[in-house]
Amino acid sequence: MRVLVTGFEPFMGSAVNPSQQVVERLQAAPPPGADFAFAVLPTVYYAASARLRELLDSVQPDLWVGLGQGGGAGLHVEQVGINLNHVRPGRADNAGNSPQDEIAAPESPDARFATLPVRALAEYLRGQGIPAQVSYHAGTFICNHVLFAGLDHAASRGLPLLGGFIHTPLLPEQAAALEGDLRPSMALDYLEYAIRTALGWLVTPTRTEGGPVALRKA
Amino acid sequence: MRVLVTGFEPFMGSAVNPSQQVVERLQAAPPPGADFAFAVLPTVYYAASARLRELLDSVQPDLWVGLGQGGGAGLHVEQVGINLNHVRPGRADNAGNSPQDEIAAPESPDARFATLPVRALAEYLRGQGIPAQVSYHAGTFICNHVLFAGLDHAASRGLPLLGGFIHTPLLPEQAAALEGDLRPSMALDYLEYAIRTALGWLVTPTRTEGGPVALRKA
Amino acid sequence: MRVLVTGFEPFMGSAVNPSQQVVERLQAAPPPGADFAFAVLPTVYYAASARLRELLDSVQPDLWVGLGQGGGAGLHVEQVGINLNHVRPGRADNAGNSPQDEIAAPESPDARFATLPVRALAEYLRGQGIPAQVSYHAGTFICNHVLFAGLDHAASRGLPLLGGFIHTPLLPEQAAALEGDLRPSMALDYLEYAIRTALGWLVTPTRTEGGPVALRKA
Amino acid sequence: MRVLVTGFEPFMGSAVNPSQQVVERLQAAPPPGADFAFAVLPTVYYAASARLRELLDSVQPDLWVGLGQGGGAGLHVEQVGINLNHVRPGRADNAGNSPQDEIAAPESPDARFATLPVRALAEYLRGQGIPAQVSYHAGTFICNHVLFAGLDHAASRGLPLLGGFIHTPLLPEQAAALEGDLRPSMALDYLEYAIRTALGWLVTPTRTEGGPVALRKA
Repeated sequence: MRVLVTGFEPFMGSAVNPSQQVVERLQAAPPPGADFAFAVLPTVYYAASARLRELLDSVQPDLWVGLGQGGGAGLHVEQVGINLNHVRPGRADNAGNSPQDEIAAPESPDARFATLPVRALAEYLRGQGIPAQVSYHAGTFICNHVLFAGLDHAASRGLPLLGGFIHTPLLPEQAAALEGDLRPSMALDYLEYAIRTALGWLVTPTRTEGGPVALRKA
Repeated sequence: MRVLVTGFEPFMGSAVNPSQQVVERLQAAPPPGADFAFAVLPTVYYAASARLRELLDSVQPDLWVGLGQGGGAGLHVEQVGINLNHVRPGRADNAGNSPQDEIAAPESPDARFATLPVRALAEYLRGQGIPAQVSYHAGTFICNHVLFAGLDHAASRGLPLLGGFIHTPLLPEQAAALEGDLRPSMALDYLEYAIRTALGWLVTPTRTEGGPVALRKA
Repeated sequence: MRVLVTGFEPFMGSAVNPSQQVVERLQAAPPPGADFAFAVLPTVYYAASARLRELLDSVQPDLWVGLGQGGGAGLHVEQVGINLNHVRPGRADNAGNSPQDEIAAPESPDARFATLPVRALAEYLRGQGIPAQVSYHAGTFICNHVLFAGLDHAASRGLPLLGGFIHTPLLPEQAAALEGDLRPSMALDYLEYAIRTALGWLVTPTRTEGGPVALRKA
Repeated sequence: MRVLVTGFEPFMGSAVNPSQQVVERLQAAPPPGADFAFAVLPTVYYAASARLRELLDSVQPDLWVGLGQGGGAGLHVEQVGINLNHVRPGRADNAGNSPQDEIAAPESPDARFATLPVRALAEYLRGQGIPAQVSYHAGTFICNHVLFAGLDHAASRGLPLLGGFIHTPLLPEQAAALEGDLRPSMALDYLEYAIRTALGWLVTPTRTEGGPVALRKA
């Protein structure tokens, strides 16, 4: 079984990105049970999705788990990626792009569901004492852009990919650096443990052979 | 110009539903500028969407605005309806249905974007001093079910419908009846004013003739 | 029975203040059942509290209800005012004061409990379908400054005052003018209704004669 | 320098309490720089405060840091304890007590400010990348009860105590066990690190000799 795990470069002025740090830790000591490939994507619309498509084509993973920095409490396992790029005016990606209500892939559908067993994964993690929940909104920034792009690439080419995305909380030092009331955060050691637990569950044969997923087959 | 405005019956033990009350007020004194039809849908999966499809076929509206009770602060103009029914275990719709991760329309895509000018509407309202925002998650209950169903019906039949959905806050008496810290609410008179303002903007000819919308055409 | 109701001038760049607008409406048509006096205080540390003390001495009210703009959902009936002035660096009151962890009245205690029947009032309102809750933190800006000052003045002089403070939500136009996700708001007409309901309850003889309050006597 | 650090037993059905777990870890490996005493208090009104007073009298600490389970994001360094016991009807402490708007100490003032350098501590932690903030509401349960009792005991006897309270987030497994959207949490290892950092700063001689504190002396 081949597994691709991706993270992102820091963005919007932050010096760090929890998804990058977790990917680097996983890369230094890959989990057992599968052949893992890792990549840190640029936090740039289209450049990120192009790089992901290259990776999906070259690595040919059975499973793709995208990781990205969110701002919630606990892990958010994303149900859906939408075909829409949008950033609030005045903000931009790392290349200065600031799209407004832009359809990312004009020939593609409005959205794609993750093909990971989203709810089962969130419930497994929660059963292990790890804060995780299903999320139905991955934002309109690069995380969502890449989630949609990966799922759309696999669907349009008929790739048997289990793909999905997990948004992480901020790192504690990121939360501490923001003004005003504190936002939730998760320590890197714990985040690494949580992601390793998620991957360990996902690469268990019964998860994928049993057809964990495709909602349409349910 | 024909306009269909729908609301919902009360659900989950509440005696009232702001969307029903607004629809009844609008019906008693329809806004100017268009031919309005009104309906209150049952808060029941599939029954609600079947009734909406009948209305879309019989009324043949140019514009459909679905209203439903949400729990946010201000109006949430929904960007996307997803093809997924889900209620938290232990809860149910008004007919006792409690679907879990159920694809609503197996032959249809995963999601549909609203064809209303979502952001322009939200920004217009905000410019008028009315709290409104774009939302990317209409939930997985009957509101979302109906939003997806209406958009999917129009898209699959090529109907030139501008369709979309606005989630309202709770009514003050609903917020007052809940335990714990207060959730946001909106007084019925103000809600009626806000919805009338939204409809007034939507039925202005330049809104629809000018091609308010279709994101893909932008 | 004499009742003093106070509001505040707009602050921090806002053109309006819901507490001022409610006071002006009440002044134009005072509630029945008591002799009402109204005032709009400057949103300035010490100037506001000095003005309040003058009013308490000249009006000699049996009941003082301070109103002020908060940012919560529904009315917050404050339990306690603290003897501490603090604004986040970079912000200031209307005279440019920006105190940091400043004891307002060095000879006075750290805090004073409201002498209104705080919980009974909140529960009465909630029973009337009006969103209201007890709050234990009135902030560290002028609202709290005035709440503490009024209570401390009455306590130190042995005045038989029932005093307290109600924080209102933002007005809809204030919420609409802020960036990002919407904060709760309350329409002015409804706010006026809610405050009139609160005052109507408070001036009922059994409320005050019956010893509505003093927690210590309970 | 003598330092007393207290935590609490689990309550309201939870099997664990982060404050207890941190205290046990600190006890197993006390921080350097001071003589530390540790205790886990019963989560019972009056029993907890009585036990704390005994400890303050027997240990005679220069510094007391109470720890307790909160539900916020990051550490909340409490500014004030109030002389009021209240639990929502239907809830109770570990002995079944369910006080409603009860004055804890009829002869004592309404509230007491913490004598720790509250803001300086929060800002120091934040500068170290640890999420911490000043809080002005420690609740009305046993945490606040004990905070008030400890401060009141020291103030009424003239003890030269620097006292205060830090609310911790939930542990991840506690957040994972709750229904609905996730609440913030903090992993135990990180929490231990954060509390050790706080204690390390507090026991630095210049913190206490320099008179970090007493707001009234500022």
